[in-house]
This record gives sequence, C-alpha cells and structure tokens, in this order.
Amino acid sequence: MSIPSRVRLIDVGPRDGLQNEKTPVPAAVKIELVHRLQQAGLKEIEVTSYVSPKWVPQMADNHEVMSGITRQRGVAYSVLTPNLKGFESAVLDRPDEIVVFGSASEAFSQRNINCSIAESIERFAPVVEAALAAGIRVRGAMSCTVGCPYEGDIAPERVAYLAGLLQGIGVQRVDVADTIGVGTPRKVQKALEATLQHFGIDEVSGHFHDTYGQALSNTLAALELGVWNFQSSVAGLGGCPYAKGATGNVATEDVVYMLQGMGIETGIDLDLLIDAGAYISDFLGRKPNSRVAVALLTRRKH
Amino acid sequence: MSIPSRVRLIDVGPRDGLQNEKTPVPAAVKIELVHRLQQAGLKEIEVTSYVSPKWVPQMADNHEVMSGITRQRGVAYSVLTPNLKGFESAVLDRPDEIVVFGSASEAFSQRNINCSIAESIERFAPVVEAALAAGIRVRGAMSCTVGCPYEGDIAPERVAYLAGLLQGIGVQRVDVADTIGVGTPRKVQKALEATLQHFGIDEVSGHFHDTYGQALSNTLAALELGVWNFQSSVAGLGGCPYAKGATGNVATEDVVYMLQGMGIETGIDLDLLIDAGAYISDFLGRKPNSRVAVALLTRRKH
Repeated sequence: MSIPSRVRLIDVGPRDGLQNEKTPVPAAVKIELVHRLQQAGLKEIEVTSYVSPKWVPQMADNHEVMSGITRQRGVAYSVLTPNLKGFESAVLDRPDEIVVFGSASEAFSQRNINCSIAESIERFAPVVEAALAAGIRVRGAMSCTVGCPYEGDIAPERVAYLAGLLQGIGVQRVDVADTIGVGTPRKVQKALEATLQHFGIDEVSGHFHDTYGQALSNTLAALELGVWNFQSSVAGLGGCPYAKGATGNVATEDVVYMLQGMGIETGIDLDLLIDAGAYISDFLGRKPNSRVAVALLTRRKH
Repeated sequence: MSIPSRVRLIDVGPRDGLQNEKTPVPAAVKIELVHRLQQAGLKEIEVTSYVSPKWVPQMADNHEVMSGITRQRGVAYSVLTPNLKGFESAVLDRPDEIVVFGSASEAFSQRNINCSIAESIERFAPVVEAALAAGIRVRGAMSCTVGCPYEGDIAPERVAYLAGLLQGIGVQRVDVADTIGVGTPRKVQKALEATLQHFGIDEVSGHFHDTYGQALSNTLAALELGVWNFQSSVAGLGGCPYAKGATGNVATEDVVYMLQGMGIETGIDLDLLIDAGAYISDFLGRKPNSRVAVALLTRRKH
C-alpha cells in the first residue's frame, strides 16, 4: 500500500479544544489563535459552535469570533450546529462547512443526547438539508468509533451503521473519531474500513485522541489505508473529559512532525504552528500538551 | 507484511532510565523495581552498569543491586560494561547478558567517548571475547541511528557500518536506538533495514525515544518489518539529556497497551506493570511519564 503523498489537516483547537477549557477565553484570543493557525498554513479550522450558551458557555461568543476573523482565501472555516436554531444563527456568519454529529455507541448517544443513534441522525436531517440548500458543505463527526466509556469496544458494524445513516441524510464527509483514545492500529483500521463502505477515501478523516499515546500510530495505520484527512488540535487543546488530567485530542504539532519526517506534504510551517500553540498555551497558563512543542520550545531556549 | 504475533520487551528502566535521574535512588528501591517488573511479566531487564562511579554515581551500587535481586527463572538480567575492568566486576555478579555500545554518528562518538566509531568498537573486542568465553551473551546498543544532536540526520549506511563492526567483534544482537527521538516511521525503517544487513530479524531490537511523541508509530513501522524485540522504560524513566524537560525512553506501559490492543502477545500484565511504574514514580515524586499510566491511574481513582 502506498502512503498518501500529502495530507490535509483540520485543526479543531478553537472549537473542540477550547470547548472543554475551564479558563474563559476572550473572543479576541480565539480570533488571534485562528489567525495564527491560518498563518501557519492550516487550510481548515473548526472555529466555534452554535449551541445554547446554557450548555456550552465557552462558545457563547460564536458570532463575535466568526465575524472577527480576517478570512484567508483557500481556508475553510467550519462550525458545529447541533440543531436548526443553531444553524440559522450560524448561516448568518457564513461558515464554509457545518458539522453535525452522531455516536457509534447507543449507550453514549442515550447518555449524551438522550435519544437513539437513529433518532439523533433524523433530527439532523433538516439541518443538513438547509445547509446544502444554502450551498454550505456538511461534515459528520462520528464519535466513539472504537470504544465507548459506557459500552467498551464498539463493533465496526456499528460504525458502518452510523456512516450509512449520515450518508443517507446527505452528509458529505465524515470524521472517524476515537473519542476516548482507546484505539490501536488494527481497531482503528477496522473502524475506517467500515466507514469506507459508505464514503470515498477523500471523504473520510481520522480524528484520534492521545489519551493512551496511540494517536500517531493510529494515524500511521490510517495513512496505510490511504486516508489523508486528519483532525488534530493545536497544543493538544481539549483534555479528555472521561479521564480528567489525561490527554485528549492529538496535538497538531505532533502529527505534522511525523508527516514531515515521512516526506508527506502538509503545507504547514511547524515553527509558526508551534508559535500558535505557545500563544494559546501561554494564555491558559500551561505548557502545550504536545511532545514536539515541548521538545522544540526547550531547544529554542538553549 | 504480516506483523509478528508476539513481542519481547526489554525494560531498560533500572539502568538506562535511572542513570539520568538526579534524585539518588537507593539499591533497595532499584531491587524492588526489578522485582516488580519481573512480577509484571518482563523477561528481560537491563539492571545496572559497571562503569566508574566517578562518571555515573547513580550506578555505583551495581553489585548490591545485582546480588540483591531474587532471580526468576526465564528472566534475563543484562548489565552495561563499558570496558574490561567493568566486565571483570560484572562477571562476578553473573549477568545473563552484557551490553556494549557504539554510535552511528562520528561526531557523537568523538564528543561522547573521545574516539572514532571504529576505535570504540575495537576497544570492546576484548570485552566481547571475555564475555563469550564466560558463556555470557553480548548485546550491542547502537546509538544515534536516525539523528545525532551534533550531526543531524544519520545516513542508513552509517548504521550498516556500525552494525558490521559490532557483528565483526562477535556481538550477538543489537539495539537500533533513536537516541534523540527525532525518528519517524520511514527513517526508522531505513535504520533497521541497514542493521538487518548484518543481523537476523530475531537479533535486532528497536529502541525508540518519545521526545517528539514518535516512539509508538516507529514501533508500528518496525513491527511491519518483522522486528519483534523492543526496548522501553517503565514509567518512561530517563528524560532526554539533549532536551531538558522533554521525554526520553518510550514508556513500557504505552508500548504494551498498543501491542495488546493489536492482539500481539507480550506476556505482560499491564496492571502490574502500571503498579511498578507508579512505585518508582512515587519514589521520584512525580507522575509516570506514560500516557497510558496517567490515564489508567486516573480511571482507577474514579
């Protein structure tokens, strides 16, 4: 199998990362982070979500952030829209893509959004329809595709089932997320292969968590299947909500380091990316949760 | 390529790991660590080194440690012997294997031990000869096989050259070490392939550092070549001397988690291994430098 010669990274730090932060982050800091990410060469950035501020106060400034960004040609800005009301607010801020979501685990779906997987996807159907009508792309984030905090291992058939439902309502591409980071190379390949039953290789992205340090080996395993879209979070923003103190999203810096070392084109300037991660980490008052950033920032000092 | 169905891990924590620790570790604690590692199922443990206490005071208690271990049948205890004087002390403590070493980087060899690669290997020849005559196995640790803090990238030809020299003096198996952790999957495969010109697949082990978070993807890349021997350090003991504050040896816990997840047999009980890592980390007054250990210890608390 020949490994892809280029990779497209979606940085989910501003949304997925900062959503779990306890420290309030002002809109101006989020905007600066987005600017620094695009300056570093990121071509896709998940910026914010349009969800009730009662549930996610961290994203209450969605309009301020989206309208404050100086957009760069060739960069796509995506936002999470959990319902039609959210979508109607989001559309005013002209995102390039909206994100809907579903879980491959029934227990997770029930506990997280209080309905079955099938029901949750049905509820998204009008959102997807409205987005497509407005000429906005739609991505589906599939959670718990390898393991679930309540159910344990998730069978690839469940992943294929979810992918089929998302494809059925018109979702154009999907993320295969290992939400609790328990995946290892073979398991992750099986989840990806299940997804590829319903989506083409260009429409499937890997979203791996580093909770157990497995994200890069899983990335390598995904590359070996031909997958060339990946999600990551600058400075590893966003801890693991299921294991407090543990790592969540894999750091974009660590992914880029591996890809560059393998001669795979990313279009990203690692030094500028590290600056972006250091910027937000300094604001949050901690070290970047990225081994590459820590090693290179240490080397810069000497 | 079919991935090996079982893997043998050599835990280098007691020697390579603790050698770089500033906190003095009493012999009794080292002995307890070795006991806990063998209880967890480790079949090879690098215990100590026989080097002048002037240079490495951390290992001055080598005799006390080696003679204090209650040996377990089927477990091999190895020690580093940098010269004939060291070997003569070591042999009294009946190690199963001695370790000699060489660098694939001329600059590193010169700066580290003040002689050329060829000279350094020649100096080991009488040590290897004495060990083999005494029925003790000999392993060669090859450092800087991917990158060097002084030279940068190391060509695979330099690795093959070093492997050939070690094979020439009678060394029976070798470690391919990415001493500064800059390796990525393809580069590591090239270093391994260069080594395989002189050693069989059963005689080559991978020794990867996690300084840039690449150790597990490099392990996966090595497995894909058929390599099934790996070195790692419980709790990620031993930081990176070339980037203070950064990670060095990959944590045994993280390697075992990946291998178990892939259905590869290791003979290791992950829970007991985490206990061993927690034991020494508690002694050193810090968290284990292992994402798996941090995540699982957090889960145990809840």
